[in-house]
Amino acid sequence: MLLSKLFVPITKDLPSEAKIKSHQLMLQTGMIRQSSAGIYSWLPLGYKVMKKIENIVREEQNNIGAQEMLMPTIQSADIWKESGRYDDYGEEMLRISDRQKREMLYGPTNEEQITEIFRSSVKSYKLLPQIFYHIQWKFRDELRPRFGVMRCREFYMKDAYSFDLNESGATLTYNKMFYAYLKTFQRLGLKSIPMKAETGPIGGDLSHEFIILAETGESKIYADKKVFDISIDRYKDEKASLEKMKNDFSKYYAVTDDKYKSTEFDKNVKKENQIETKGIEVGHIFYFGDKYSKSMNCSVDTKEGKKIFVKMGSYGIGVSRLVAAIIEAKYKDNKMKWPKSVSPYDVVIIPSINKNDSTNLTKAKKLYEELKKNSLDVLLDDIDENISNKFKKHDLLGIPFQIIIGSKSSKDLFEFKEVNFESKMLDLNQIIKQIKN
Amino acid sequence: MLLSKLFVPITKDLPSEAKIKSHQLMLQTGMIRQSSAGIYSWLPLGYKVMKKIENIVREEQNNIGAQEMLMPTIQSADIWKESGRYDDYGEEMLRISDRQKREMLYGPTNEEQITEIFRSSVKSYKLLPQIFYHIQWKFRDELRPRFGVMRCREFYMKDAYSFDLNESGATLTYNKMFYAYLKTFQRLGLKSIPMKAETGPIGGDLSHEFIILAETGESKIYADKKVFDISIDRYKDEKASLEKMKNDFSKYYAVTDDKYKSTEFDKNVKKENQIETKGIEVGHIFYFGDKYSKSMNCSVDTKEGKKIFVKMGSYGIGVSRLVAAIIEAKYKDNKMKWPKSVSPYDVVIIPSINKNDSTNLTKAKKLYEELKKNSLDVLLDDIDENISNKFKKHDLLGIPFQIIIGSKSSKDLFEFKEVNFESKMLDLNQIIKQIKN
Repeated sequence: MLLSKLFVPITKDLPSEAKIKSHQLMLQTGMIRQSSAGIYSWLPLGYKVMKKIENIVREEQNNIGAQEMLMPTIQSADIWKESGRYDDYGEEMLRISDRQKREMLYGPTNEEQITEIFRSSVKSYKLLPQIFYHIQWKFRDELRPRFGVMRCREFYMKDAYSFDLNESGATLTYNKMFYAYLKTFQRLGLKSIPMKAETGPIGGDLSHEFIILAETGESKIYADKKVFDISIDRYKDEKASLEKMKNDFSKYYAVTDDKYKSTEFDKNVKKENQIETKGIEVGHIFYFGDKYSKSMNCSVDTKEGKKIFVKMGSYGIGVSRLVAAIIEAKYKDNKMKWPKSVSPYDVVIIPSINKNDSTNLTKAKKLYEELKKNSLDVLLDDIDENISNKFKKHDLLGIPFQIIIGSKSSKDLFEFKEVNFESKMLDLNQIIKQIKN
Repeated sequence: MLLSKLFVPITKDLPSEAKIKSHQLMLQTGMIRQSSAGIYSWLPLGYKVMKKIENIVREEQNNIGAQEMLMPTIQSADIWKESGRYDDYGEEMLRISDRQKREMLYGPTNEEQITEIFRSSVKSYKLLPQIFYHIQWKFRDELRPRFGVMRCREFYMKDAYSFDLNESGATLTYNKMFYAYLKTFQRLGLKSIPMKAETGPIGGDLSHEFIILAETGESKIYADKKVFDISIDRYKDEKASLEKMKNDFSKYYAVTDDKYKSTEFDKNVKKENQIETKGIEVGHIFYFGDKYSKSMNCSVDTKEGKKIFVKMGSYGIGVSRLVAAIIEAKYKDNKMKWPKSVSPYDVVIIPSINKNDSTNLTKAKKLYEELKKNSLDVLLDDIDENISNKFKKHDLLGIPFQIIIGSKSSKDLFEFKEVNFESKMLDLNQIIKQIKN
């Protein structure tokens, strides 16, 4: 893509409410544009990053055998009255009345809807266990939307729902999802820590939040620093290994402020290992047994012909929020560097452009075509502006690899730079190898 | 995928309102489930088909240089008041009041929103021409939602918006989109005919609907049968060729009932070439000049320093509706056959299963693994039911290739069948070749 043709409307005057780095950077690089309070349009650059995140989330859901589907955004109030949450949810739920005066709502979550689908179609234990997920827009009418897409009203979320016959089956499913989450965040370049958490309006007895460390986070967290040393690569998607994984994580104290008790913290964690900091919630999983299946009469026949209420869990990842969370985690020393897996482009070519001399631009265009032929997604900064302004701009755009075409480049060698590393003179093949590595 | 694990809840008792084949078949094969009037959940099978359609639509938009972005579903009423459409739109627009009593709405279309984004960021002719598109859920509060996803309330749509400096540029953009639409529908296995149409609530002077023939269509159409002989393969995405394409189509009479006049039809089309039938609208494109740019004050500076209102067009494809439209076009003689490009699976293996003999199922599972290794998306019907019921079920599921494992199959040869063709005995490599061809 030529930068001169790419629609990246850069906001120069930041609005006063853009207080955290991710909000500022997403406006500065034209990733998003506010449409109304807490509601954003995703412009091409932001959209690309979000889609890459979405695809990684999807692949890891598929890897544990979850089936993708898609529930609508607008739900009938009736099912929420059945579960008893219609009144509980309060003003955060966007309530709508259609032209026939039917009570509808913009779904803030989908436990009721999936339970209704399941109960109407599944009557026997034979289809269990089952995990369904969808990636869909949701709406929560926050009183004070803030921090850009981090705490907005219309947001994009992966939510999964599981159905099991009994608690031991449900525990295995919960562990699978726990594993899929750690895998997902690892592929997104993030170190996430599962922490015991309150269940809030979803309900239930067991719940973990997945938190990444960031000074700007809204959650206070308390943890034993040893929990950060556990690598997900040690485990695999098999019952025994998954149990070991959950036990290993449970050995170390790691909670958000809801669950924090200073006496417990001091009792369980040596002073020198205590970490008190802030974090961003990027995922949240719940096991709530028959909370919805009972109130909504969702049962299956067991092998023995008995009716039992299915055991359910739900599992969320904030896909749009992750775009901001990654920025909060990766922006350092006035520079953004996107993880390769979600960068809007694989590499950017930055020619030094001089009005009276098109040599660099011509060279850059040739290289651009070569890299595209090698299936790389390349951005060419063909804009006529001075090179130091260009570098400042690319510090924000955060594409992890740069090729600088200026005085240093010779006929076949180009100045190649991975952000935060020294630049090297490389030829085309070496460059392709470095990027694809 | 094993059919026993796939969530395809089959509706046996069709509701009385399911009058057309696509609605019936989508319920019978568990592709969708109604959530409330005119609002549907897309279950795994339906979701897969819709996603494949979406991807083809996306690729053809990208091929003509359109940039993808994503606008939110909920819009502020303010911009609709600016354009003057807030009152015009009537009760089809789902109006919402948020917790702060702000007037919002669920977008039925996005002309206002994209114009607002464009005017706030683009000030110079230099970024023109430009096409943006998004694929997003929309809502039209139909008085009588019917025909399943064909005329529903919450629907999935690709809508594109173009910005040009002058009318000749805008015509080229219009022709590019015309071309992209014909390419898209061709890849979906559909023969679509562009027809001059009324512009309706979008407005403007020039508009084409893309219609596919189907007895169940809601649009009456009148055409010269010669228009069906024009192949899009004759043209390419270059100015002169695109003009020729539009002229070639314009030579033949082809209109929907809005534009139909019997005297013109008889004057322009020989009796023996006259086609009067019904069709389904699958796409609609509009050129409306400065209708929105003027009312919303969206101008750019020209090279000469003059301010001009940009010339705009909009271009829609109903992605969710296309799932139903393809069924209406492809279901024949009590059998569905999905076009290969959008079939939920590449191939289905149908073993004849006998309670006391697992030979066929074992053979089927081995073949299933082999085909998966060759990157094919395979469905294995491992359900224990009699073979004639299986065949009836697969007549509805419509996967275009079947491998039947029964008495005919020998050690290395399997009964391979493309739906609507004779079956043949083939070995693994021949089967892979046939499917991938």
